[in-house]
Amino acid sequence: MKIAVLPGDGIGTEIVAEAIKVLKVLDLPFELEEAKVGGAAYEADGHPLPDATLKLAQAADAVLFGAVGDWKYDKLERSLRPEQAILGLRKHLGLFANFRPAICYPELTHASSLKPELVAGLDILIIRELTGDIYFGQPRGRRVAVDGHFPGAEEAFDTMRYSRPEIERIAHVAFQAARKRSKRVTSVDKANVLETFQFWKDVVTEVHAQYPDVELDHMYVDNAAMQLVKAPKKFDVVVTGNMFGDILSDEAAMLTGSIGMLPSASLNSANKGLYEPSHGSAPDIAGKGVANPLATILSAAMMLKFSLQQADAADRIESAVSAVLAAGLRTPDIWSEGTQKVGTREMGDAVVAAI
Amino acid sequence: MKIAVLPGDGIGTEIVAEAIKVLKVLDLPFELEEAKVGGAAYEADGHPLPDATLKLAQAADAVLFGAVGDWKYDKLERSLRPEQAILGLRKHLGLFANFRPAICYPELTHASSLKPELVAGLDILIIRELTGDIYFGQPRGRRVAVDGHFPGAEEAFDTMRYSRPEIERIAHVAFQAARKRSKRVTSVDKANVLETFQFWKDVVTEVHAQYPDVELDHMYVDNAAMQLVKAPKKFDVVVTGNMFGDILSDEAAMLTGSIGMLPSASLNSANKGLYEPSHGSAPDIAGKGVANPLATILSAAMMLKFSLQQADAADRIESAVSAVLAAGLRTPDIWSEGTQKVGTREMGDAVVAAI
Ligand SMILES: CC(C)[C@H](C(=O)O)[C@@H](O)C(=O)O
Ligand SMILES: CC(C)[C@H](C(=O)O)[C@@H](O)C(=O)O
Repeated sequence: MKIAVLPGDGIGTEIVAEAIKVLKVLDLPFELEEAKVGGAAYEADGHPLPDATLKLAQAADAVLFGAVGDWKYDKLERSLRPEQAILGLRKHLGLFANFRPAICYPELTHASSLKPELVAGLDILIIRELTGDIYFGQPRGRRVAVDGHFPGAEEAFDTMRYSRPEIERIAHVAFQAARKRSKRVTSVDKANVLETFQFWKDVVTEVHAQYPDVELDHMYVDNAAMQLVKAPKKFDVVVTGNMFGDILSDEAAMLTGSIGMLPSASLNSANKGLYEPSHGSAPDIAGKGVANPLATILSAAMMLKFSLQQADAADRIESAVSAVLAAGLRTPDIWSEGTQKVGTREMGDAVVAAI
Repeated sequence: MKIAVLPGDGIGTEIVAEAIKVLKVLDLPFELEEAKVGGAAYEADGHPLPDATLKLAQAADAVLFGAVGDWKYDKLERSLRPEQAILGLRKHLGLFANFRPAICYPELTHASSLKPELVAGLDILIIRELTGDIYFGQPRGRRVAVDGHFPGAEEAFDTMRYSRPEIERIAHVAFQAARKRSKRVTSVDKANVLETFQFWKDVVTEVHAQYPDVELDHMYVDNAAMQLVKAPKKFDVVVTGNMFGDILSDEAAMLTGSIGMLPSASLNSANKGLYEPSHGSAPDIAGKGVANPLATILSAAMMLKFSLQQADAADRIESAVSAVLAAGLRTPDIWSEGTQKVGTREMGDAVVAAI
């Protein structure tokens, strides 16, 4: 089992180091190989996703990813900015299915912006399509407008698009995931305005015919953004496109109040995947040893389950994380009165000890 | 002063009736003319925005709009569905600047999903561009894919686009609005992925040079969706495109917990506007006399201020609304223990009495 390890920028190195400690203690036949990605790769090789890094990721059975990005790269041209690495990996590895759980841990309910009764026990799974939509649609660019409100003016444009097989495969992923949970899927669209999402709604409805045991409802994206705030626990599995999924999965993550705890997985059709925490590279706290490594450790657990067929090992990690939380250990982002503040390394060590 | 009155569907008729009572008691030289719109117009004339309705709206100095939509029209082809009326009015009247305040009234803070300390005193103004972006961009439709992941497959597509003058004019609106408030604007984009929103960011930054007294910051839309949940009071004026604005303005409205209180204005370059509550047509409670008319009454106040140069009259309405809230009157949507539950008409009557 070959794992490509891409720590990236900011807190990426620190949190990935803890996840690796945890993986190592499991004593499984992993081969871990590390490469630079994002700003770190740009500095070393002039590109955020160097060929060698991409090749390593392609050759591996799974990718463990930290985080990329830093303000200092804001002035670079777009194609050289750190985020391009993650977009490139998604595209080249065909990682079309993004799993973004939004879970409220019992010990951390109070950390939410929302009233505790609205989030206690929250467990949403957002399934975001990750290789299509307006993220990758061509054509895109700048030009002189030939119609619209100001013909002759300079304009910029992008293309939103989804093909039938792209919608079908993510719909299957969602319905199958729902079968393992409460058998309910909410498909989020904007069919009242967009051709792309009327088609999305039509195709998801067609695929649903193969899953009579799963309940499907449709919701407009603006309404979904509201209902997530109003009554998040009404959601179970949510499936949506790349752009809406970007927005809603972050909104849902923040509802929990503990985004430092949330892992994610991005899978291709062969169940090869890239695993990364839902939070970013947090350059403001990088190198200080205070970042929360648990989202990355839980991402490693997802990796064991989804890509490496090591469900037992994944369970051991998840139980260990629950144990350290129950023992009252907290990094600063989730700390509260009466619990014990620890740093990145102590937290990783505690998970290792609990395993 | 000619006002076109378009009550629409669902609770639209009831809430607009109360706003009209309030306008009439001001004893100003209004000429009110009513027309059907949305589902009601479709049933009467076979189209959600009949010619006569559009002409009336075009001839008027301002439009007072209720709400449109009902599940029963879901099966109609898109061009005949109620929402097309509102899209058509925006387009034909050139209503490019949408003002969506998200205000937490002191008496209603407890109604929010968020902890009271996070929303007490909340006062965000979202300025959404309303006639461009992927809502109106051509081409759009269905076709056979010639490239992408599945060449040869059926696909649907839409075009996102913004021209320089479209971005400039909405940026000016935002900076000018900020001058009357706390002099801070957050421009929301997705410049890390979309050509359209890199251009948006560039042009907003250029326009900002003319407003050195206003502070500007930029935020990605996914981060904005998170920060609205985490610390909504950090926002003051937010300016964004049509699609992101649709999502974020609804999210922000729901943060207040009292969407039945929130008015909106959609203006064109001549300050002619369409005024409507931020909530929808609520077919489930239509005809029951329980809908909250205050958002519509406050929309009428915005109309007086923005389009009819009657700022004093607008203030009288706003003070009257504050007075009825202070007196403890509540429609069911905002009712809580210890306050007096009233219906739509009683609420309207109370505002009239307070004026
Ligand atoms: C960094 C950016 C390109 C990316 C996205 O928009 O997909 C990020 O926001 C995410 O959700 O992983
Ligand atoms: C009804 C719909 C077309 C409309 C929109 O998407 O703009 C609505 O959601 C709104 O925000 O006014």
